[in-house]
Formats: sequence, C-alpha cells, structure tokens
Amino acid sequence: MGAKTPRTARKGRTRAKKAGLPPGTLIYTGEKKVESVRITVIDYDQQHYDEKQIRSVEECASFIATPTVTWVNIDGLHDVGVIEKLGRAFDFHPLILEDILSTRQRPKFEDYEKDVFIVLKMLSYSDEQQSVEAEQVSLILRANVVISFQERVGDVFESVRDRLRNSRGRIRKLGADYLAYALLDAIVDSYFGILENVGDKIELLEDELVSDPEERTLQAIYRLKREMIFLRRSIWPLRELINGIQRSESDLIGESTGVYLRDVYDHTIQIIDTIESFRDVVGGMLDTYLSSISNRMNAVMKVLTIIATLFIPLTFVAGIYGMNFEHMPELKWRYGYAGVWAVMLVTAILMLVFFRRKKWL
Amino acid sequence: MGAKTPRTARKGRTRAKKAGLPPGTLIYTGEKKVESVRITVIDYDQQHYDEKQIRSVEECASFIATPTVTWVNIDGLHDVGVIEKLGRAFDFHPLILEDILSTRQRPKFEDYEKDVFIVLKMLSYSDEQQSVEAEQVSLILRANVVISFQERVGDVFESVRDRLRNSRGRIRKLGADYLAYALLDAIVDSYFGILENVGDKIELLEDELVSDPEERTLQAIYRLKREMIFLRRSIWPLRELINGIQRSESDLIGESTGVYLRDVYDHTIQIIDTIESFRDVVGGMLDTYLSSISNRMNAVMKVLTIIATLFIPLTFVAGIYGMNFEHMPELKWRYGYAGVWAVMLVTAILMLVFFRRKKWL
Amino acid sequence: MGAKTPRTARKGRTRAKKAGLPPGTLIYTGEKKVESVRITVIDYDQQHYDEKQIRSVEECASFIATPTVTWVNIDGLHDVGVIEKLGRAFDFHPLILEDILSTRQRPKFEDYEKDVFIVLKMLSYSDEQQSVEAEQVSLILRANVVISFQERVGDVFESVRDRLRNSRGRIRKLGADYLAYALLDAIVDSYFGILENVGDKIELLEDELVSDPEERTLQAIYRLKREMIFLRRSIWPLRELINGIQRSESDLIGESTGVYLRDVYDHTIQIIDTIESFRDVVGGMLDTYLSSISNRMNAVMKVLTIIATLFIPLTFVAGIYGMNFEHMPELKWRYGYAGVWAVMLVTAILMLVFFRRKKWL
Amino acid sequence: MGAKTPRTARKGRTRAKKAGLPPGTLIYTGEKKVESVRITVIDYDQQHYDEKQIRSVEECASFIATPTVTWVNIDGLHDVGVIEKLGRAFDFHPLILEDILSTRQRPKFEDYEKDVFIVLKMLSYSDEQQSVEAEQVSLILRANVVISFQERVGDVFESVRDRLRNSRGRIRKLGADYLAYALLDAIVDSYFGILENVGDKIELLEDELVSDPEERTLQAIYRLKREMIFLRRSIWPLRELINGIQRSESDLIGESTGVYLRDVYDHTIQIIDTIESFRDVVGGMLDTYLSSISNRMNAVMKVLTIIATLFIPLTFVAGIYGMNFEHMPELKWRYGYAGVWAVMLVTAILMLVFFRRKKWL
Amino acid sequence: MGAKTPRTARKGRTRAKKAGLPPGTLIYTGEKKVESVRITVIDYDQQHYDEKQIRSVEECASFIATPTVTWVNIDGLHDVGVIEKLGRAFDFHPLILEDILSTRQRPKFEDYEKDVFIVLKMLSYSDEQQSVEAEQVSLILRANVVISFQERVGDVFESVRDRLRNSRGRIRKLGADYLAYALLDAIVDSYFGILENVGDKIELLEDELVSDPEERTLQAIYRLKREMIFLRRSIWPLRELINGIQRSESDLIGESTGVYLRDVYDHTIQIIDTIESFRDVVGGMLDTYLSSISNRMNAVMKVLTIIATLFIPLTFVAGIYGMNFEHMPELKWRYGYAGVWAVMLVTAILMLVFFRRKKWL
Repeated sequence: MGAKTPRTARKGRTRAKKAGLPPGTLIYTGEKKVESVRITVIDYDQQHYDEKQIRSVEECASFIATPTVTWVNIDGLHDVGVIEKLGRAFDFHPLILEDILSTRQRPKFEDYEKDVFIVLKMLSYSDEQQSVEAEQVSLILRANVVISFQERVGDVFESVRDRLRNSRGRIRKLGADYLAYALLDAIVDSYFGILENVGDKIELLEDELVSDPEERTLQAIYRLKREMIFLRRSIWPLRELINGIQRSESDLIGESTGVYLRDVYDHTIQIIDTIESFRDVVGGMLDTYLSSISNRMNAVMKVLTIIATLFIPLTFVAGIYGMNFEHMPELKWRYGYAGVWAVMLVTAILMLVFFRRKKWL
Repeated sequence: MGAKTPRTARKGRTRAKKAGLPPGTLIYTGEKKVESVRITVIDYDQQHYDEKQIRSVEECASFIATPTVTWVNIDGLHDVGVIEKLGRAFDFHPLILEDILSTRQRPKFEDYEKDVFIVLKMLSYSDEQQSVEAEQVSLILRANVVISFQERVGDVFESVRDRLRNSRGRIRKLGADYLAYALLDAIVDSYFGILENVGDKIELLEDELVSDPEERTLQAIYRLKREMIFLRRSIWPLRELINGIQRSESDLIGESTGVYLRDVYDHTIQIIDTIESFRDVVGGMLDTYLSSISNRMNAVMKVLTIIATLFIPLTFVAGIYGMNFEHMPELKWRYGYAGVWAVMLVTAILMLVFFRRKKWL
Repeated sequence: MGAKTPRTARKGRTRAKKAGLPPGTLIYTGEKKVESVRITVIDYDQQHYDEKQIRSVEECASFIATPTVTWVNIDGLHDVGVIEKLGRAFDFHPLILEDILSTRQRPKFEDYEKDVFIVLKMLSYSDEQQSVEAEQVSLILRANVVISFQERVGDVFESVRDRLRNSRGRIRKLGADYLAYALLDAIVDSYFGILENVGDKIELLEDELVSDPEERTLQAIYRLKREMIFLRRSIWPLRELINGIQRSESDLIGESTGVYLRDVYDHTIQIIDTIESFRDVVGGMLDTYLSSISNRMNAVMKVLTIIATLFIPLTFVAGIYGMNFEHMPELKWRYGYAGVWAVMLVTAILMLVFFRRKKWL
Repeated sequence: MGAKTPRTARKGRTRAKKAGLPPGTLIYTGEKKVESVRITVIDYDQQHYDEKQIRSVEECASFIATPTVTWVNIDGLHDVGVIEKLGRAFDFHPLILEDILSTRQRPKFEDYEKDVFIVLKMLSYSDEQQSVEAEQVSLILRANVVISFQERVGDVFESVRDRLRNSRGRIRKLGADYLAYALLDAIVDSYFGILENVGDKIELLEDELVSDPEERTLQAIYRLKREMIFLRRSIWPLRELINGIQRSESDLIGESTGVYLRDVYDHTIQIIDTIESFRDVVGGMLDTYLSSISNRMNAVMKVLTIIATLFIPLTFVAGIYGMNFEHMPELKWRYGYAGVWAVMLVTAILMLVFFRRKKWL
Repeated sequence: MGAKTPRTARKGRTRAKKAGLPPGTLIYTGEKKVESVRITVIDYDQQHYDEKQIRSVEECASFIATPTVTWVNIDGLHDVGVIEKLGRAFDFHPLILEDILSTRQRPKFEDYEKDVFIVLKMLSYSDEQQSVEAEQVSLILRANVVISFQERVGDVFESVRDRLRNSRGRIRKLGADYLAYALLDAIVDSYFGILENVGDKIELLEDELVSDPEERTLQAIYRLKREMIFLRRSIWPLRELINGIQRSESDLIGESTGVYLRDVYDHTIQIIDTIESFRDVVGGMLDTYLSSISNRMNAVMKVLTIIATLFIPLTFVAGIYGMNFEHMPELKWRYGYAGVWAVMLVTAILMLVFFRRKKWL
C-alpha cells in the first residue's frame, strides 16, 4: 500500500463492505496480486531438510504429523476457497482466518492457546512509484508448525530459507518458536533498509532546501511527511505486539526464545526512535522552507524599494522642469540643467548612503 | 448531531435546563425525531425465531419470561411516559433511564450487576447536509434479554436481523451477550464507512490544494477539522468502553465472548488510528494552504518588482529629456534620441540579466 | 474571579501576604462581598423539615444534636471571627478553616476521618462584565451534618432546597452524604450553562470570522482563549476530586452514593471533553484569522500589482514622446499619435491576458 | 541564578570541571557569595528557646546532645573546609556533602535512613536585574535536628524564626520534622510572591501589546518566556520531591506531619498550575504580537496601494498629453484641458468607490 | 557520529546490510577507526595495582582467575576475529557480541545472569567539525571483572585510571560493580561538558539574533536543532538504562552501589532537563528569527510607502502642467509656477503629518 491518503481512505471502503456480516465471514479485502495461490512447505530438523511446493492443502497433513518442524508458506490470499480449506484442515479459529484476509489489519498479536497469531506489515520500497509499499504478513505458530500468509510472491525471508537449507546458525537445532522469531526478525530487519531510503530522500531534500528551494521541494516535503505518518502507523504497533508476545505465557514460546525477542524489541524501539527523529527533522524542514520564502520575499521587496525610492523622487524633479509654465525662471538659467543634474546626483547618493546604513546593500 | 459548534454549544443548553433536578428525573434532551415510539421484539433460540411489533410495554412480559433470547428494540425517545413505563416494567436503575434520555451522553459502560448498560453513538453521513450525524444508542444487557434504545427509526442493525432471521453464523446458537456484541460490532463496523467518506473528502481537498487553492478550500479544511474533532470525541471513549466491558467481571458476559470483544477492540483501535492519521494529514493541509498563499504572494511581488524596476528608471530618463531647460545640449544632438534609446535598451537588458540571475525569470 | 490575567496574578499577591505565617492562621484572602455573614440552617428527615436563619453560631448546636440531617450554609467569609467561632464550635482541623478562607484554592478533596472536606468553584456568567466569575464553595461532610461556605449570597442550590422543601425525589429519605452529593451535582450541572454561554460566543465569533474579521475579532478570540484557560483550571481538578471521593474509604460516604458519584464523574468528564473541544475550535479560529489576513494582503497586493504593471509601461511610452529632442521623426508622422495609442492598447490587452491567466482577475 | 541561558550553560561548565573526580569529592560549584561561613544554632522545646551564632563546628555538639530540637543553619558554602568538618562531625554520607556543594542540583529528596536529605531552590526577585534569582537550600533532617545550608545570608525563614521566638502556633510543641516542614512551607509560600511579580509583568506586557507593540515588547515576551522555562525547571521537580517525602517510610517523619505535607503539596500543585497558565498566556502573546505585525503591514500596504492605484493612472493620462506629437487634435480643442480634468476626477471617484467597497477606506 | 541526518540515515544503511543474517552473526557496522585492536588490563585490589597492555586474548586468563578486580579495556572493534576470540574466551552470549559490534545501538542494559551488559554513547565535541561526535562504549560486568569496548583509543576514563593508580577515593576498596559504576559516572559527567559547549553556542546565537540576524543565523539555529535531536536520542534512553540497573536483581550489583546509581540517575535527569530547556530556548529562537524578518519587511515596506506616497501625487501635479494643451490658463498666470510649488509643499507636509500620526516616522 502506498503512503497516499486515498489508499488510507480506501481502507475504510473495503472494511465498510464487510459491515454487518457475521464475524468470521471470509472476504478478501485486498487486491488480487498473484495469479494462483502458491503453497510451499519446508520441513526440517537437525538432520534432514525438505522443501516442496504443494498443490492441494491436503498434502500438508503428512508433513505436520511428523515431529519435525514444518513451515507452510502461502503466497496469495485472493482465493478464499483455498484459505477456507486450510482453515478447516488446521482447525483455525474463524477470527484468525478473517484477520488474515483483511489485509488492512493493524499489526497485532493474539494468543488462541492452541495457536499464536501474529499479523504485521512487510514493507518494500517501490522504485517506480517512489514510495513505500506494505504487504500484510500473518504468522501462525503452533506446536512444531509455522504457517505464514503473504499477499504475493516475493518476500524478505530468503535469508531465513538460506540458513535453513545450509543449516547456518542455530536455526535447524531449535524449534518452531525460533523459526517464527527468525521470520519476525527478518521483517523487522528489513525496516532498516526502508529507513535508509527515507533517510536518503531527507538528505537530498535538505540539500535542495539549502541550495534552491522551489514549490516542488515543498510538495516533496509533504509527500515525505505523509510517508512518515504511514510508516509510523505500520511500525508503531509492533512495539506493543512484541511486548505482548514477551508477556504472554503461551507454552508455544520457549524460554530461551525470550532473549531473542528482547533483541527484536530493541531493534523495533530503535526503528521507532529513528522515525521520530525523522519526523522532527522533516517538521523542521517545513519551517526552513517557509522562512526561506519569507527571506526571498524580503529580498524582492528590498530591490523594489531601492529602485522605487531612488528614482521616484528623481522623476519628480524631472517632472517639475517638464512643466510648461511661462514664468519658470530656472529654465532660463545658464546652468539650470547642470544644477538639476547635480541635485539629482546628490539625492541619489544620499539615498544610497541611507540604504547602506540600513544594510540593504 | 452535525459537527457544527453551535450544536455542541446547544448540548450544554439542553443539559443546563436539567440543572438542579433530582437525579433520575426523566427529561428527554433531544429533538423529537419520530411520530410515535415503536417497540419491536425479536425472540429466538436455535430452533425458533419470532419478530413482532408490539404496542404496549406490557406485551414484552410474555417474551421475557421464556428462556429464549429476547431483543427489545425501542425507536424514539420523546415519549417519556413510555420510557418510564418500560423502566418500571424492567425495574431499571433510575440513572439508566436518565442516561438513555440524555442524548448527549459520552459513550460509556456501566455495570449495575443485574444489568450491563452501554451508551454509544451511531454515526451516519447525511448527504444533504454534507456532514456526519450522530444518534445515541443505548444497550441494556441482562440475562437472556437485550434492550436497545434509538432516537429514531433506521439503524445499522439490519444485517444482525438478517443473520437472526436466516440463522446465518453462530448468532442463533449463542446467548444474549453475543447479541449485544453483534449490535456493538455492527455500530463499530459502520464507522469504517464514515471514515471512508471523510477519506474521500480529504482526497478531493488535497487535489484542490495542489491544483488551485482558494478561500473556499480553506473553509473546507476547517470544516473537515471540526468534523474530525467531532468524530474523535464520539469514538475515542469507545476504547475505554470496550476495555471496561472486557475487564468487568459481570456474570452476564460469557467467557467465550471475550475473543469477539477483543476483535471489536482491535477495530476500534484501528478506527482511532485512522482518525489520528487523518488529523495529521488535515493539519498538514493547513500548512500547505498557508505556504501556497505565501508562494503566490511571492509570485505577485516578483511581477510587480520586475515591471517597476524595469520601467521606473527608464521613465526617469524620459523625464529628463522632457524638461524644458533652454540650455540642454543633448536635445540638439543629431543622435540624441537614438542615444537615449540605446541607453534605455542597455539598462533594460542589464536589469533582465539581473533578474535572471536572481531566478525571478 | 474574572478570567483576566491581572486577577490570576493577584491570586499570587493575596497568597504572598500569608507567606511565613504558621499554617492554620486565618486570613481571608478574598474581597468582602456581603455586608454581614448569613448563617442558614436546614434540618430535615423523611417526616419533618425546618429552615431557619440563625444569628449566632451557638444556635446550631441544638440542630446538630438531633439524629436528623442538618445543613448549615454560611454566606460571606470576610468576618474571620465568625468563621473562627464556627471552627471551635465544630472542632474543625485548623487547615480546613485556612482552606475555606483562602478563596483561591484549587478544587480538592481531603479526608480528615471525622470530616470530609471538599473545595470547588461555583461559576457564574456575569452579563455586564461579559466574563465568567468564580466563587469558592467549601463543603464539609460529617455524620448527619453538611456545612457549606460561600463567598456571597446567591447560589445554584435553590433547586436542592426546593427538593428538600417539597420532598421531591429521594433526597429527604437519604442521609447527609446524599445531600453533599446533591450540592456537588448542582454545581457541576451549572457548568453546562456556562459552557452554553461560551459556545454561543464561539458561534458568534465564527460567523464574524467568516463574514468580516477585524482586529476586534482577534481580541475577542484572545479573550475567549484566556477564558478557556481559566475554565480549564477551575474544572479540570474536579476529575481528580471526585475520583478521590470515590476511592476514599471514609465511613461518611455510604455505598449507595457510589453510583451517583459515578454519574457526577461522567458529567465532569463530559464537561472537560467539551472544554477541550472548544480549545481546539478556538485554536483553529486563530489560524483562520491569520490566514484571512494573509488572504487580504494578497488581494491588496494583486490590485497594486495590476494597476502598477498596467500603467507604468504605458506611462513610460508617454514619457518617451514627451521628450524634447529636435530630431524625433515619430513626432512628425501623420499617424504617430494614433500609433502610440495602438501600441498602448495592445500592451494593456496583453497585460490583462497575462493577469487573467495568472488568475488574478 | 538569573533566567539567562548563559548561566544555564555555565551550569554545565562548573559541573564539567568535576567530571571524573571520585563521587564525594567536595568542590563548591557556585560563586562565593559571602565573606565567611556563618553558623547559627537555634535550640528549643516547649519551655525554652536559645538562639546563638557559633564560630566553630564543634560548638554544635552540646546542643545536639540534648533531647530538645536543634536547628543549625549554615550561610555560605564556599569554605569547603568548614563543610567538610561539619560532614565529619555529623557523619553525613559523602554524597550528601557533594550535593550540598553542587549548587545546581535539581530539587530532590533522598532518604539515607539516618538522615532525610532535601535540596530545593529558594527564589527571589532581583529588582535591579529585573529577573528571578535562585539560591540552593539543602535541608537535612535527623532525630531532633534540622541542618539547613544556604548559599548566602538572607532568606525567607524569618517568619519561622519569629514563630519560634514568640512561640506562636504549634511549632514549639512539635518535633524536628515539623520544623523541616515549616522551612519547606516557607520556601513554597515565597514562590507565590515570585508568581505575583511575573503576573504583574505579564499584565504590563499585555497592555503594551494592545496599545502599542514594539520590537522591545517582543524581546520582553521572550525574556518572560525564558524566565518561565527557568521557573518551571526550578519548581516542577518539587511535586515529585514532596510526593517522595509523603511516600517515604522514614521514621524521622511523624504521621501527624502528613496532613501538613499534603497542604504544601496542594500549594505546589497550585503554583505549577499557575506557571502552566502563565505559559499558555505568554505563548498566546507571541501570536498576538505576530498578528499585530501582520495587521500593520496590511495597513501600510493599503495606504501604498490606495495612493499608487489612484495616481498612477492619472499620471499616465497627464503623460499622454505631455507628448509632443504634431498631430494631436485634443490639444487644440477648446475644452480639452477641462475634459482631461473631468476624466481624471471621474477616474479618481470610481477608484475611491472601489476602495470603499473593498473596505480599505 | 556527527549530528547530520545523512549519518542517521547511514545508520539504517549499515544495519540493512545485516538484514537476514542469523542473530549473533558478527559484522562490525562502524568505520575502522584505529590501526590495530589494543587490549589493556588493569588488575587491582586494596593492596596491589597492575596495569598492562597485552597482545593476545589468552593473556587475560591469568588476571581473571585471581580474586582481584580486573578491568579489561578493548580499543578498536574492526577486527572481528579478535572480538570473536574474546567472546569464546569469556563465553559471552552471542547477542552480546553482536551488540558490541553494531555501533549504532540504542543505549540499553541487559541482564544475562552471568553477565550484566551495558551499551551507551560516549560523546565528544569535535572542534574542527563543530559538532558532537558519538562513540559507542559497551560494558560487561561479571564477578570481579569489567570488560569495556570502545571504537577507538582515547576516552573519558582517564580520571578513573588516576584514582585507581593513586588509590584515591574508595575505588580500590570496592568491587567490580563499583568500577562499572565509576565508568558509567565518568561518561555521564562528560555530558555536562558537551552541554556547556552547546550552551555557549546558544548564547552566541542569541546575541547574533538580537544584534544582526542573517540567513546564516537561521542555518545555525537549524544545525543546533538537529544537534539537539541527536543529543536527545543519545542520552534519553540512559534514564531507562539506569532505572533498569537499579531495578534489576542481579547478584553482580551490590546493595551499597544503589546509592551511587541513584546519584548517576539524578545527573542523567538533570542532563535531560537541561536538554529539554535548550530545546525550548532553541524553539523560541526560531520564532524570534521569523518575527525579526517580519519586522524588517515591515520597515522596508514603510520606507517604500512613505517615498511612493509622498512623490507619486507630486509627480502627478507636475505631469498636469507638463501637458501641451493650448488652452491651459494656469500656465500663463504670473504666479502659476510658485503656486504649484506651494500646493506641492502643502501636500507633502500633510503627508508627513499623516505618517507621523501613523508612527511611521
């Protein structure tokens, strides 16, 4: 989702359609982003690793029955039928399914005893649209199983898959809760990249502001500001989310995972801190812009004033001797013309001295 | 109630009339919105469903005596006699009745042991007035009974009635607490539609701001801002309300309803979040407007300065040679006139170069 | 107290005089507002009702000895001797007396075991001064007795007296704690009327702002703003006050009074909410004023620019042919004059087209 | 300390010198404000009262040994040797001594079991500097002894001494904790006088703002604003301080003192409230100033525009008939000159009508 | 790290590179600031003191085995191999090592039972860059050992080393927790010096603002503002950090250290207070700057208006008598010319009187 208000508004729109339906009614509120739903299963323990793309929901069963850790990843949510079948197969609480399909969820954590349910936003920077896009990711953690739902193919989990495939780090030795943490961590870490992009934009804008602010700059500042509002809204609830997981007493989350969760928590705080700093900086940029406009207006006014103040009195003098009175003795004086020039020059010089003292020149 | 301040003030007015009366005195503080009070009873359990419009309060008794769930809905509050009779029939606490009739209540939840009492706002978007209207809805939940009070006919509960009639979802299988939840949920869900309307307005205004801001735009921004204040005030207390229900230890609310309440709570938070984002965006629009005025003023000033700075000196030169001195040798020169033109052209060109370097052209 | 800063400052002044005196030293810090202190006693139970104005403090004793509820109301605090005598007669804690006489107290609740002490502000709208006036009211609740202190004759308790006299509502059946609640409730309810007045003023100002904002409007906005600060300061602590009463475990406050206190609390929250909304609206009005000034300045600038830009070049052209060079061939041309007019007209039309495109016309 | 930023900065400076020294190292960070350290001992109980200025620290011992209450007051902190000797004599925790000498402490309360340690600011209004000055006061309360440290001679405790000497109020009957309270109360009460001064300044500035705002006014507003920041910083922590004393379970503070502490607490809240109100008012003054500048600029622009718009077109007309074309039929007309005047007058009148309708006249 | 946004952005950049790596992967995210890693060991108890620069990590072992307190200080973090070896030698939790190397950590405290881990920022003022630089310092406290990590050689711990070498104060008598406190204290104390520098800059800028504000001043204000954001972000989390240590129940921190921690906490609060005051002052400076621009623009406008208003009408009069009508009787009058001068003078005088009354002169 781009950081434009219309979209934010549309959020309401899609929700509005659902108003009044019984809770648990499954309607996909996002756009159809992939052709067909793709289900990938990764099954592993310390010894073996198995990765497979399956066609029907039923194929999962065999993997899940085993004591090994199973990660089922679903790309594409538009086919409500598939999701519903999944729901029945895994016996999810109806509200879980509803939340997965409502792609405008606020990041949250929910403990359904049998399942731990996490919804959050995966952000990516779209180069062609020059804005941050959000995709909803839902994670369900149950004993030995993690099920993840994404709106489309392509994610930030490739590094996790690499570690699984090559058995790097501890991941293959630990349980499903560590896998869930690893996915969470991958998403949070990807936010740093987004912030980097935003930071670069801010840097560019600041240079522009100092060198040559234009109306375009102002609009860029506002776009940035709205992007900030969007980012803040997507990331801020994460704090509460991770806090919730930490405080929850679910059996599904082992004690040893606590220290890792604290680490993700620290990263989240750091990201929020950075966003807040950015907000401060962007807020300051607007003031800079406004005062630079004032400064320019001031400069324009000075030029006008200098020219007008200099020439209006002189023009008046010229006007005087342009009058056609019959009795104007000065007109007949030998040095009248030269005298007028002298008067004008003295006036002009006095004016310039005045401007100099006023520091306008 | 529209989002205009006068109404907000009038709120005080109607309350003021009540000042000093003993608590529990029943005075309807709203406007008379329907001709006669309409009482509808819906009685159901998993097997049977009965919907009936009744004339006298006494008719309720037969429905309530049964172990089935009964929903009594009252449209119209202006007939204090009927409400009073209802109060006696159901033996409500006098403060409940008072709160039902004070249609400017802040959304709140009150646990009277025998009854759970909820007041909140049902919002609707009035197309002809181009503003959000509020109607107070009071819900009383007691064992097997839900009684709802509305200011006028027409509500957002039609979908709940549909589900009851057609036995869709779980609603017919569950108790009165689930019905109360369903009504609450229907109201909260309807807020999404309101936000959608507001979002559309914001979108329109933003386009106008960029393309062609006018005084009218400013007024629209202020109207939006005040609508925001109104919305915020109507919806914000909901958070606390639902929290209160969740924390309450009333026997009337079953444990299984907890998860649904959490769901409504999440929606409320999401709505509040959206309102806050809107507030930020609208706040930013005002700044945009002000700086676009500054920008325009700057543009106007530049045009004035360019024209004045260009022609005032030239006019001065022309003034010089319009003087009638007898001894002005230049006037007699063969190429005097052409020379003056040359001087003027050079001056003008220098000026234009100056403007170009100042980036005014 | 009016909402003017000087008064706020004077508050410090009167307090300052007391600095260093031992706590409990009785000095009346208000203005003398009545001629003589007036003591009224109302004594009642379900069967009998007695209302009497007494002259000496000693006369109270007979009423208080009885098990009936006694309400002693004192109007006028300037006669420290009388207050001191009262203090001795009732054996009040010295800090209670000091607080009663310091008429600039912040609303507060204090539990002295034997007594419950409440200080708050009774507000009234002074029509001649066009501002809100505050009067301090102190309430002391002890077993079967309520003693109230006011700065001057005239209050918002008339309706409570009516209910007592005519035995309307429950008041005659209940104890001293209910009476104290009724007085509190009467004061809080009277705030709605004050808010109504403020709301009306806001409405008037908003109309003025849209139709014809003047310097006077600005001053009215500031006066309103300061009135808001004053109101906020008088009412905000009430929230804490009532909360304190609710949480206190004083034996003097019966359990059945709890639900009524919660009702007053809700009203207080509603009043505070309204004040906050008003603050938002008034804050917005200032912005409207400032941007309407900017808009006007812009309009003024446009007129100046149009006139100057139109005529300065034309005047220059006229100046050219006002020169007295001997060799100016154009002057001799048959259609020179007409040609100049043509050039001027074309220039003017081009200018107007330019203005039209800039949307200045 | 004055409310100027440099001083605030210098605070850092003096602290900076201490950086790296072991905690408890005694360095006086203030300015030398008195010639020699002066130690005064007041020893009293209900029957006897003894006041004496002593020369050496050792002389204290005899007073402290007795069961009577002893108040040791030290004026002047620059002689670290004396303070160190005191520290050893009384066996203070090294951090207490360090805090006494660091005269830029934040007001705080510290419970060292044997001692209760309080640091706060005594404010005074310096007439010649037109600003608020702060002096650090440290109080140490232990069984039967209060030791107070001040930076220089002269304080707000004279009234407490008077009450002790003349045995007014309860003070002679009560213990050291009441004495400590009395000193605290005297300081807090003196703040009211400071606020009074600030209030007077605000009043004066407001009058100036309405009648004739100048650049000087703006600077006065900013000085006031900074004074506010300074006051706030000195007084705000007091709230927490007194709260801390109230919550502390030190044996040194008797139960009966609780009610008096609550009283000081209320005063503190009241002072903080007043400061916040002042901040709001001062903040509003800045806006008033800015909008009054805008208003004036607007007025100036209108005058310019009226004059220029009126005369520029007329000058153009005059310029037309100042041209020297040979063929200008109008010049020869009998009523040409009168006609031009007529045209000019009509133009001018139309202009004036236009200005009148624009409400510029 | 300087207080420039680009760097802040770059923070994201370096983090971004790590995204997806398993937690505990060691990558140094800072710049290489020293040639080689330098390890210094200080070993002491009350009797003996030993200070030694060691080459290999293994040499530490002998020091650590003894019951004396050992402080291992590492300067330079770029050599991941050395850090890894250290990690293995001391058996640190992998997340500790990761945090040490991520030099953009938010200050935090982490209790790993065996170890207490503290990360914070050491600030220094770079004279050539005119900005505050930050260096990350990590402290690990375990029984009898403190290990400190710095990005480069040179720190604020020299005074601590002095006290250790010369056995000044209590430091040699107390344990490793006191040493950790002493290091923390040295860092916090060094912030006072930074604040002093910032205070000096503010003072300078304020003088410039009053005497002669320029565009350069504005940029300096913004630089200061951003420095403030940077400082705030580095220091603010310290509050929470020290709070965390105080609340932690780690066995590694002795009870007697509590009072010292409270002292550091107080200093931190004081520093944060000062930063907040500075923010307020800097915020006010911006307003001063903007209103001084407005004031100047006003002055410029007045000069323009006076000159234009004075001479435009006079020039018009001159224009009138420069017309070439044949029938202009005034031109032939004896005192026509003198009369025009008289009219002009009177007009000018009236104008000047008008300006004087408007207070423009």
